[in-house]
Amino acid sequence: MLVWVDGSPAAALSVKDRGLAYGDGLFETIAVKNGQPRLFARHLERLAEGCARLGLACDPGLVRSELLRFCVALGDGVAKLILTRGDGLRGYAPPVAAQPRRILQASPWPDYPAAYAEQGVRLFPCQTRLAEQPLLAGLKHLNRLEQVLARAEWHDAEHAEGLMLDTSERVIEGVYSNLFVVKDGVLLTPELARCGVAGVMRAELLAQAQLRGIVTVVRDIGYAELPGADELFLCNSLYGIWPVRALQDHDWPVGPVTRKLQSIARDLLDC
Amino acid sequence: MLVWVDGSPAAALSVKDRGLAYGDGLFETIAVKNGQPRLFARHLERLAEGCARLGLACDPGLVRSELLRFCVALGDGVAKLILTRGDGLRGYAPPVAAQPRRILQASPWPDYPAAYAEQGVRLFPCQTRLAEQPLLAGLKHLNRLEQVLARAEWHDAEHAEGLMLDTSERVIEGVYSNLFVVKDGVLLTPELARCGVAGVMRAELLAQAQLRGIVTVVRDIGYAELPGADELFLCNSLYGIWPVRALQDHDWPVGPVTRKLQSIARDLLDC
Repeated sequence: MLVWVDGSPAAALSVKDRGLAYGDGLFETIAVKNGQPRLFARHLERLAEGCARLGLACDPGLVRSELLRFCVALGDGVAKLILTRGDGLRGYAPPVAAQPRRILQASPWPDYPAAYAEQGVRLFPCQTRLAEQPLLAGLKHLNRLEQVLARAEWHDAEHAEGLMLDTSERVIEGVYSNLFVVKDGVLLTPELARCGVAGVMRAELLAQAQLRGIVTVVRDIGYAELPGADELFLCNSLYGIWPVRALQDHDWPVGPVTRKLQSIARDLLDC
Repeated sequence: MLVWVDGSPAAALSVKDRGLAYGDGLFETIAVKNGQPRLFARHLERLAEGCARLGLACDPGLVRSELLRFCVALGDGVAKLILTRGDGLRGYAPPVAAQPRRILQASPWPDYPAAYAEQGVRLFPCQTRLAEQPLLAGLKHLNRLEQVLARAEWHDAEHAEGLMLDTSERVIEGVYSNLFVVKDGVLLTPELARCGVAGVMRAELLAQAQLRGIVTVVRDIGYAELPGADELFLCNSLYGIWPVRALQDHDWPVGPVTRKLQSIARDLLDC
């Protein structure tokens, strides 16, 4: 598959890259249809916020134009951008004149079973907890060992995703998705100020729901609140929305708010 | 400088490496003198523990023999081993038949001012807190954004190291060192069960102190305990021991326990 490093085809990377040494960088995983990136403005916005918070000096115009060219070359599939602080010497101190590196990788469109979107998924209750680190919360950075450990907790195909709590037992997200709860017509999603990844589909769904008069609330959600929810669903920027139909002993119906937003997500992703 | 990937000279790395994608791996930074790695058994021991806890299938005999060959080729300097889970496809799930990758990089011996060891150092009080994640605590893994952020907090040469607390305001470590406190003849060092890197020099000094009849205690240490300490020092596997002489408004003398252990560390590192 297609790989570009700093705008040119390449399959290899300097071993001095700080993305490898320290996970010193960010990434974005973008749905591409007919050569066009989906939710593109939101991906660029999150990347810019990540760069600001990590002190990564990146040229947003260059990233944008390069991504657009890459998507045209890709056609249909998934474009992953990894943006690192570039090469460094030994030691944590970021180089004064760091040259951020852009790595673009193409993947085929993931072949999730259609049943996940249609009938909903069963969530695996992960034992791995997310540590609370406000300085990194919300960012899609390259320090992802918690997700690696969580995803290694189950191997069966029965569970499409895993539910992750933080170390204070709050509900946060899926391993590669954000979570929404519908209760009495209100759309709730966990606060991500201490940990978690603020997904672009999450941001877009909050905005779309507000446009349609659905009340949205972002707040801490305890695990004990889930059984009483009317609807539960997951989202991300590739598959859109999967209803959650089961978690341990609890079952939820696939409800009308989920179906309405799922249809909106389909249009956004053109899938 | 010398670089080997999987035992052969190379300057580049597959862009599919999970060390880059997720920080899915470990590292060791080893002092090398006259072609010999120092504290070698402890480095290998920590690496093996990290492999076990991350579920990384690595051949310890191969790592050991390759490191020994690399150190001979290097002569004098620093050998850094990065061990990753190797190539992966998109997605957090570790590949079933993952092929861990060994990356060996040489660096020249760091030229720290002699005054750091002789007169001691001033610590910078970092604002970046270490998140509490027992599943990763103690390991020298590749998710090091907290250290990158902390090390970016100061730029002056007056501060040789920074002090890091955890999110509950306990004293944990330096950015690239472990910390010891001497109080009433007892050698104290912070518990690293929730966060922090369990340094090989820390482990060796605890063992050496016990051999010499010094009482050692590993426990939680509050920031408020530091002003009352008799001596404070930092250690790591490259520089040995640096006395801490100042932190904010506090000053400490360079005391006898520090000097005794410093001499032991010098012998261990042959420096």
